[in-house]
Amino acid sequence: MNTYGKLFRITTFGESHGAAIGVIIDGCPAGLEIDLMAIQAELARRKPGQSRITTQRQEADEVEILSGVFDGKTQGTPIMLLIRNEDQRSKDYSHLAQNFRPSHADYTYQAKYGHRDYRGGGRSSARETAARVAAGAIAKQLLTLEGITVEAYVSQVGNLRLSKSYQELDLSQTNYNIVRCPDSATAEQMITLIDQTRKNRDTIGGVISCVIKTVPVGLGEPVFDKLHAELGKAMLSINAAKGFEYGSGFAGVEMLGSEHNDIFYTENQQVKTKTNHSGGIQGGISNGEDIYFRVAFKPVATIMQDQPSIDTEGNEVQVTAKGRHDPCVVPRAVPIVEAMAALVLADFYLRNKLSKLTHNL
Amino acid sequence: MNTYGKLFRITTFGESHGAAIGVIIDGCPAGLEIDLMAIQAELARRKPGQSRITTQRQEADEVEILSGVFDGKTQGTPIMLLIRNEDQRSKDYSHLAQNFRPSHADYTYQAKYGHRDYRGGGRSSARETAARVAAGAIAKQLLTLEGITVEAYVSQVGNLRLSKSYQELDLSQTNYNIVRCPDSATAEQMITLIDQTRKNRDTIGGVISCVIKTVPVGLGEPVFDKLHAELGKAMLSINAAKGFEYGSGFAGVEMLGSEHNDIFYTENQQVKTKTNHSGGIQGGISNGEDIYFRVAFKPVATIMQDQPSIDTEGNEVQVTAKGRHDPCVVPRAVPIVEAMAALVLADFYLRNKLSKLTHNL
Amino acid sequence: MNTYGKLFRITTFGESHGAAIGVIIDGCPAGLEIDLMAIQAELARRKPGQSRITTQRQEADEVEILSGVFDGKTQGTPIMLLIRNEDQRSKDYSHLAQNFRPSHADYTYQAKYGHRDYRGGGRSSARETAARVAAGAIAKQLLTLEGITVEAYVSQVGNLRLSKSYQELDLSQTNYNIVRCPDSATAEQMITLIDQTRKNRDTIGGVISCVIKTVPVGLGEPVFDKLHAELGKAMLSINAAKGFEYGSGFAGVEMLGSEHNDIFYTENQQVKTKTNHSGGIQGGISNGEDIYFRVAFKPVATIMQDQPSIDTEGNEVQVTAKGRHDPCVVPRAVPIVEAMAALVLADFYLRNKLSKLTHNL
Amino acid sequence: MNTYGKLFRITTFGESHGAAIGVIIDGCPAGLEIDLMAIQAELARRKPGQSRITTQRQEADEVEILSGVFDGKTQGTPIMLLIRNEDQRSKDYSHLAQNFRPSHADYTYQAKYGHRDYRGGGRSSARETAARVAAGAIAKQLLTLEGITVEAYVSQVGNLRLSKSYQELDLSQTNYNIVRCPDSATAEQMITLIDQTRKNRDTIGGVISCVIKTVPVGLGEPVFDKLHAELGKAMLSINAAKGFEYGSGFAGVEMLGSEHNDIFYTENQQVKTKTNHSGGIQGGISNGEDIYFRVAFKPVATIMQDQPSIDTEGNEVQVTAKGRHDPCVVPRAVPIVEAMAALVLADFYLRNKLSKLTHNL
Repeated sequence: MNTYGKLFRITTFGESHGAAIGVIIDGCPAGLEIDLMAIQAELARRKPGQSRITTQRQEADEVEILSGVFDGKTQGTPIMLLIRNEDQRSKDYSHLAQNFRPSHADYTYQAKYGHRDYRGGGRSSARETAARVAAGAIAKQLLTLEGITVEAYVSQVGNLRLSKSYQELDLSQTNYNIVRCPDSATAEQMITLIDQTRKNRDTIGGVISCVIKTVPVGLGEPVFDKLHAELGKAMLSINAAKGFEYGSGFAGVEMLGSEHNDIFYTENQQVKTKTNHSGGIQGGISNGEDIYFRVAFKPVATIMQDQPSIDTEGNEVQVTAKGRHDPCVVPRAVPIVEAMAALVLADFYLRNKLSKLTHNL
Repeated sequence: MNTYGKLFRITTFGESHGAAIGVIIDGCPAGLEIDLMAIQAELARRKPGQSRITTQRQEADEVEILSGVFDGKTQGTPIMLLIRNEDQRSKDYSHLAQNFRPSHADYTYQAKYGHRDYRGGGRSSARETAARVAAGAIAKQLLTLEGITVEAYVSQVGNLRLSKSYQELDLSQTNYNIVRCPDSATAEQMITLIDQTRKNRDTIGGVISCVIKTVPVGLGEPVFDKLHAELGKAMLSINAAKGFEYGSGFAGVEMLGSEHNDIFYTENQQVKTKTNHSGGIQGGISNGEDIYFRVAFKPVATIMQDQPSIDTEGNEVQVTAKGRHDPCVVPRAVPIVEAMAALVLADFYLRNKLSKLTHNL
Repeated sequence: MNTYGKLFRITTFGESHGAAIGVIIDGCPAGLEIDLMAIQAELARRKPGQSRITTQRQEADEVEILSGVFDGKTQGTPIMLLIRNEDQRSKDYSHLAQNFRPSHADYTYQAKYGHRDYRGGGRSSARETAARVAAGAIAKQLLTLEGITVEAYVSQVGNLRLSKSYQELDLSQTNYNIVRCPDSATAEQMITLIDQTRKNRDTIGGVISCVIKTVPVGLGEPVFDKLHAELGKAMLSINAAKGFEYGSGFAGVEMLGSEHNDIFYTENQQVKTKTNHSGGIQGGISNGEDIYFRVAFKPVATIMQDQPSIDTEGNEVQVTAKGRHDPCVVPRAVPIVEAMAALVLADFYLRNKLSKLTHNL
Repeated sequence: MNTYGKLFRITTFGESHGAAIGVIIDGCPAGLEIDLMAIQAELARRKPGQSRITTQRQEADEVEILSGVFDGKTQGTPIMLLIRNEDQRSKDYSHLAQNFRPSHADYTYQAKYGHRDYRGGGRSSARETAARVAAGAIAKQLLTLEGITVEAYVSQVGNLRLSKSYQELDLSQTNYNIVRCPDSATAEQMITLIDQTRKNRDTIGGVISCVIKTVPVGLGEPVFDKLHAELGKAMLSINAAKGFEYGSGFAGVEMLGSEHNDIFYTENQQVKTKTNHSGGIQGGISNGEDIYFRVAFKPVATIMQDQPSIDTEGNEVQVTAKGRHDPCVVPRAVPIVEAMAALVLADFYLRNKLSKLTHNL
């Protein structure tokens, strides 16, 4: 189905080339002041055509709030956010009606459903993520009240890997360059690499890192719905994601327990850990330290090169990419990673309130 | 909550030091022949005390089927599997009632719930995974009917990394050694490393790789419930998991689109891809190629060394580990990875049947 | 939450005096031809201002389909139906901001949420049911493919009770009079009674009967989600509903088992029953006979008379009803009863398909 | 599926003639003291063989708590309650394997699933309700902490209808007679009627009334999950239920709004209503007045008379009832009505706590 979350729940709708896309948020607490401009600003970070290293397709992505907000405040009722589609140029895609693009969802959709919306992918299109970003912007406004911040940035493009840890970076710099890497020197190199890749009519992968700070202790459920498990699912549900790791991640495998264990101490009556290999989550539950994780994204499947493929009849064909596409997905995926993280956190924030309530008769 | 899955749903119950643990499976199709010995065999692969490189704690882990199966066949009604607990030695843990073990769930539980079951972790104990393995064994029996196989193996312990890909290995060899690595030479090295680590009263991490073969095209949902997203969540919900990647994973980031794209061709009227960087999943939906993924596990937090920590009052204490624990989690986690993968596949197998049904009026 | 149904799921949104109301349908099968005019026609049967025995408030209730339908056919993706609000005259309600109207949701809302949308009731307003009617119109189009018909009619107003059973009536006559009673003589009496009640500035209750024909055998689940249990919930969720009975209902209590039992026989190889006290449902599952049930509605709480009440401070006040309201709810509730019945049937139709699938490996 | 409730959730399992039945409760708050004897006492009120007017089948119905309770208190983890089956005498039913009993679930099960458990009905058997009663006993213990009481009683058998309202009765007398009617004179008549019916080898229907007192204001959700809608579903999910009405119910239809409206007033700073036609629920939400409702039960379908029917091949047969059955279902259904009401109330009690939490940032 098209619903995500348990208590802070979103249901997205809309096809990339239909009349509109949007989202209903059900479960957002009442009394939250909604900053429409902030929602619009998040959408602007995701929207196509924002810089020379993104697709040149243009979408205004203007959001309307049609329910759930009165006098600027949430009412506790479902919030409906609508974004009309524009500039769809379905004709750009018509040549794809019969062909399966390599490493796209074309074939699996066709095989699964017996039909597909070839106009840009229908629901499988990354356009659906605009609805997530809009909903995530509201989740962020809820988290802000609790002082929780969610900050993502590009930490790798191709083999250009940012060597600094997030503590060594000034994350406020992330949005000052078009690749969204907070280290300006590395950002320059990344932009050059993406530019070069685009000129080669090719695409390249990347990694987005995300840090969540000032998280209350207790978010996450102990068995199946561990906080990092849900964050992992949320990230892996973003188009082109290939991997997720949190805290020490894959590198932690090579450590000994005596190195990896985060030793507790107390500072100003607050429980802290001396290291944070746990990535802020122990036993699936936040421990108050920073949560940090990394998400791997593959190179965009649509390349500006002819590629051999097959059509729906199994015949060999050449697929000629003609649309307008991103040479690298990560600059535009930064707000999507933040939105999905914010949605997970908002949901677990409410679930933890519920937990407390049911654990203290 | 304690439920996992949408159509093939499990609900686990039981504390590690209570009377019993177990699971209800709701949604398992009727008419499936149940092989009780096969369930027991999976539990034997997970159970403690099975070799010198696992904890020496002993549990018989005998499973009883109390409902849902009649004359050896499932009835379409809830299947209840019960495993009585034995050898609990709660006294081993009594010294931990007031102390927080480093990198365990002790502190987060206490902070979240205001109380905790110090007798071995309660629901946060890895003992809960025995219920998953029992349910997963039934899921496997369902998948076997469709010819789907799920095979996991240890591919890394500490910095000892199996260099061969799964295609170069004979996975039937996995269970012939106690570390569950199908390459006997590497297995020997791994066992030596774990043995050495244990003698040093330390622990070490590892990676489990998993391959799912003969998967029908069409498993997975396009938006939030992408197949790899749910596999990721399932794996990350296993105790000590720190990361998940599928197909090209984190390494795919460094590739160009023109290298990474899997070119379609037809063989015997079947659609195939020449490479499989997609890991058998495109747009969140299986494409019929092998699904493969890797799961990172941290070093076990309980080490046989004194560690500084704090108690529930925030006082500095020494934590002395006295119980019987695993020096490395991966040998016993292999059947858990397989069980969770089988549960996800069984669920999506049914969900895909439903999809087909609702997409063809 | 604001979601109803398991496989054919609707989520409604919108306040009576906000910008719009609407509904997302998730789970509607692909390939269904959508008749927009038929949706509009159902809304016309529910809308205010349609006759002299309904409220004189005017709403155009024009519906837009913003997603999920392409070239007139459902795509299997979420269907979003939007109805903009008009003629809201919030000022009519401003005098109610501080007062609790008797037998309305004002007090319980205020007490539950600490705030309320006094502009016509917010989400508690019967305006929300327009979204249900729109969604129900699509459910009906799905049921029509299977030959299933859903027909409701007014069978009682005050103490004027239609003495004929549904078999003795020509249900095609239901919409030829403004009270929606298929027996024209009784309809005349009912209209006179409602007219008289309205002139007395009072309101009166009624009963709606509903018949569902050509139902396949097998709809309904055996334990909690019995078909009649879900129909009951659906009907009781309609504003002003006070009771539900199906088949022999409350009258069946006085019968003996030997009278009440419906004897099976076979006709043209079809299993039939000689009587139908079961109301087409046995053990919670449809048996192929007609399903019929009755829903009791109380007199509308808003009367055109001054009534004593209290305000939010507990002070005694007079409540003067000034809005435009219905003297009797049942004529406009007929399409709502049909819509909710159609939504339940569509959901169980899909659930039964799923059942079959999971019961025949 | 076999799960009921949103936050206080039960999943029942077990066939009437399998090894055991039982229930998992997920979501019960931690710290609740569990009185095992009280659970056993509720089961004793439901169990067969308790008096001459119930079936003479014997079941010990001894309940074991296998998880979720430690030192007599709930842990916030899933509570597993197991009841082993005894005295199954499956042979009593073997003659029914091929025949469809009139007005039973035999035919619909067979048609829906293609197979059925003829040994007493499998999951469709009323034996499943023992699991509900056990879970309901725990829900009652939770409600008791809040001062909420749930009391059901038999108010009608056949045409013998208790004329007194619940306010005129001493409900503490309900359990002092075998028919569970609090008015001893009427009880005697009912017992005589049931006895006579049994001697005539027939069965008869009845009505159970239920009163819930000291309910906090605010239980119930405004749109689909209105409190009375969920109570209605819960009651209609009980075997043999045919109708549900609350407050003024079907009789309220004949009233005028000016008579039916419940006028608010304040007493000791508490909001009260002068009448209670609303049955304690307004707009789907409890208003603090007593909740009361009635549930209609049909005559038991199994009668001690030969009846014509058909077999699975459609041939005409005689069905000879040989088992041991109830001449009237209502005496044993009283604790089931209470259990289902308690489960609904416990769930909404938690949901309301959640509502409050999400409506007050």
